[in-house]
Parts: sequence; C-alpha cells; structure tokens
Amino acid sequence: MAGASSQKFHRPHASRPTSRRTVLKGLIAPLLVPTLTAAAAQDTVMLPTPRKEGGLSLMEAISLRQSTRAYGARALDQQVLSDLLWAAFGINRPESKGRTAPSWHGSTETDIYVASADGVWLYRAEEHALQRVLADDIRAEIGEQPYVKTAPVILIYAADKSRMYEAPDEQHVRFAYVDSAYVSQNVYLFAAAFGLKTVVIGSIKAEAVARRLGLHPQQLVTLGQPIGYPA
Amino acid sequence: MAGASSQKFHRPHASRPTSRRTVLKGLIAPLLVPTLTAAAAQDTVMLPTPRKEGGLSLMEAISLRQSTRAYGARALDQQVLSDLLWAAFGINRPESKGRTAPSWHGSTETDIYVASADGVWLYRAEEHALQRVLADDIRAEIGEQPYVKTAPVILIYAADKSRMYEAPDEQHVRFAYVDSAYVSQNVYLFAAAFGLKTVVIGSIKAEAVARRLGLHPQQLVTLGQPIGYPA
Repeated sequence: MAGASSQKFHRPHASRPTSRRTVLKGLIAPLLVPTLTAAAAQDTVMLPTPRKEGGLSLMEAISLRQSTRAYGARALDQQVLSDLLWAAFGINRPESKGRTAPSWHGSTETDIYVASADGVWLYRAEEHALQRVLADDIRAEIGEQPYVKTAPVILIYAADKSRMYEAPDEQHVRFAYVDSAYVSQNVYLFAAAFGLKTVVIGSIKAEAVARRLGLHPQQLVTLGQPIGYPA
Repeated sequence: MAGASSQKFHRPHASRPTSRRTVLKGLIAPLLVPTLTAAAAQDTVMLPTPRKEGGLSLMEAISLRQSTRAYGARALDQQVLSDLLWAAFGINRPESKGRTAPSWHGSTETDIYVASADGVWLYRAEEHALQRVLADDIRAEIGEQPYVKTAPVILIYAADKSRMYEAPDEQHVRFAYVDSAYVSQNVYLFAAAFGLKTVVIGSIKAEAVARRLGLHPQQLVTLGQPIGYPA
C-alpha cells in the first residue's frame, strides 16, 4: 500500500469471469517461490507480521465501539494495515487455517478489497499480503456519502458465492451479508481499540464497484467500511 | 434467569400482534417506579452492573475466536450473563443510547432472547434487565444440532422490522441478518475473552421458534447462538 510503487494496471477477472481461480493461481505462485518476478513483486506487497498484543481490552474496546463519519487525512501505515486486516479476517489458527470471523459452513467466501489513494488491493489472508487489482483511486465512487472521499482507506467486502456451500442463491446472498458483518464488527472493535474511526456503509454502490474491480458474476459486493484517524 | 422463581407463563405478543409497543409499555413501567408489582417482579430480573474491565485484550480475544459445538453443564451465573448481554448489544454510550454493535440506520431492531432451562427471557438493554416471555425450556426445539440440547444458554436473535427505517421488505430482511451478525461477533469475542465456547446457528428453526415465543409477524428470527463453558 503506502510505499508500493507499482504503476501496472490489471484487472484479473475483467475478461475471464469464470476462470478466476486459474488466473489467481498464476499470481499466487510467485509468492510461494523465492524468486519473485518483477511484475508480481510490483503488484504484491507482503504485510509485516501482525501485532497480536497491546491495545485495549475487549471490554474497553466494546465500551468505545461507535460509528464515525469524519476522518483526518493521515494514512494508515503498513503495520497498522497489517494488524487491521489480520484482526478483520486473518488466519488465527494456522493449523486449521481458522479465521478471526466465522463464515457460513466454513466457506470463507468474504474477500476484503482495500481502496486507497494508490489503488485497490485484495487482502490475501493465507499469505498475509496485499495484491493490487486496480491502480485507480475509486474511493469517491463507492457511495454518495461525502466522507468516502476523505477516508484514507475504505474496506470493501465481497463474497465469492462460488466458494460457498451449495444452496439456493437466496441463502448465498443472505449469508454473504451475514459473513461480511462478522468481519466488519472486528474492524469496528479494532478501530475502537487503536484510536481509529470507522462506519459501515450498507448503501455501497455494489454493482458499480463490482464492475470497477472487474469481479466475476459470482462475486457479490456487500458492505463498505471507511476507516481512518480522527478528523 | 438462574435464581428467578417465576412460574407465570405469558406471551405478550401472541394475541395482539400489532400492538407490541403498547403491551410492552405496561411491562416496562414497573421498572421505572420503585414499587414493583408482584407479577412484574416475578417476571423481570434486573441484571447486575456489567463489568467493563478485565478479561483479555481485543487482539488476544480475536486470536482465540473460534466456533465450538460442545458445552459443559455448568450454568452461566447472573454476573456473566450480565457482562455477556451488555457486550453483545448493551448500551455503551448512555447519553445517546448508543449500542455496542451498529444497526442499519440506527434502527436497533435486534432483540436478544435468552433460552435456558428456566424459560426464555428478553434482554431489555435500556433497563439492563431480563423479562421472561416463556416459562418453558425450548432449547432442544431451536435446531437439529445435538449440542443445542446441552448448551446452558442459547441466544436467539430476532429483528423487529417494525422498528426499522422504512424500506422494501427485502432490505429489511437483509439488514436484519446483518445486524444480528454484528451482535453475534461480540458474543464470539466475549466467549473467547472469558473462557466460554459458542457457535452461531444459521439454520435455526426460525418460524417454529417465532411461533413458540409468540412473536408478532414483523419479528424475524435470524440466528441462534448457544454459549457455555467447555465440555
């Protein structure tokens, strides 16, 4: 994120909506071998190890939980972003790949996209890395609210229904939203514990954002969540 | 809850589905004056002041967050229940009646029903009290899962759509689920921080439970969440 210098613009899903896994496989591979290609290195940022100590107690964080709709210009540094994304939906039990929020039938279908001034990045929990999916600043396109233009980071939750336990679409949609909300509450509490401000946007321009990110038809944008320091 | 001795069975919404506020007003009134009627005293339990200190840090709680489907027989005492319900969806900002979880347009439509061996109780956040709505033990009726029979407490989330910001029913249903999930993650983290075990039940027998509790047609049962000590 901050500090990344990629100028490359790519939208992995734009032209091949049904072959996302295949496309991503090529992008993940460089992370698993020591020799990163130049393109992959530019487009992927390994996050620092998340700090799992410090901050307020759970009950103190819950005491301070609130929605705030104004943010200062200060950016989130990579360590804070690392801590935040891990708290949101990182892996907290490496042996089982268990996550910090539950998901319907363990589908772990929620992806977090991180929109900031330098583009949009996909959080890859297994690698604890960010992979750029767009070089544009789309924050102002996410909703009508004036504060979406000023938050340094907007988290965008999108459920990949193709990863969900088989069920009618109505159930997929319902639990796509439910599972995003679980992640979002972790973000609310993280903000409360570490002096950040946040609010959930239920009226995110879901279809426009999905198009902008080049998501495939089975990916459903559910909620948005700006986060930043106090104004 | 534990220690309450009421034998009275009443279902405030069963016969007057459209007049819930009026019916409840009569039940709340005794809490606001020093002289409780005998009936109200039997059916309402003021919870002790929640403890907002102690326990693990937020990040430690997030590290331990998991779903567990087996519980010991040990009951939750009133202090733990008080702490749990406050963390779940209590008032954390008395001046604005702000709550520990967000809700769609501030609708605060989520009610928590507490099912245990001695009946089902409605959590009343403003009074931080429990009001009995049923004297029966309905835990085994909530889902097919064997562990629902053994958890000392099952939280049942129900959204009162009549309290929600005006919108099409599809949106009401969607955000009813979303808002329950926010509350549920607080419960997950509370469990992690205080040595309790929990799991969310997305397949709760919603209509059967709503009938059993005598809910009015605008109340939607969304999720269930057993909680107890380790098996």
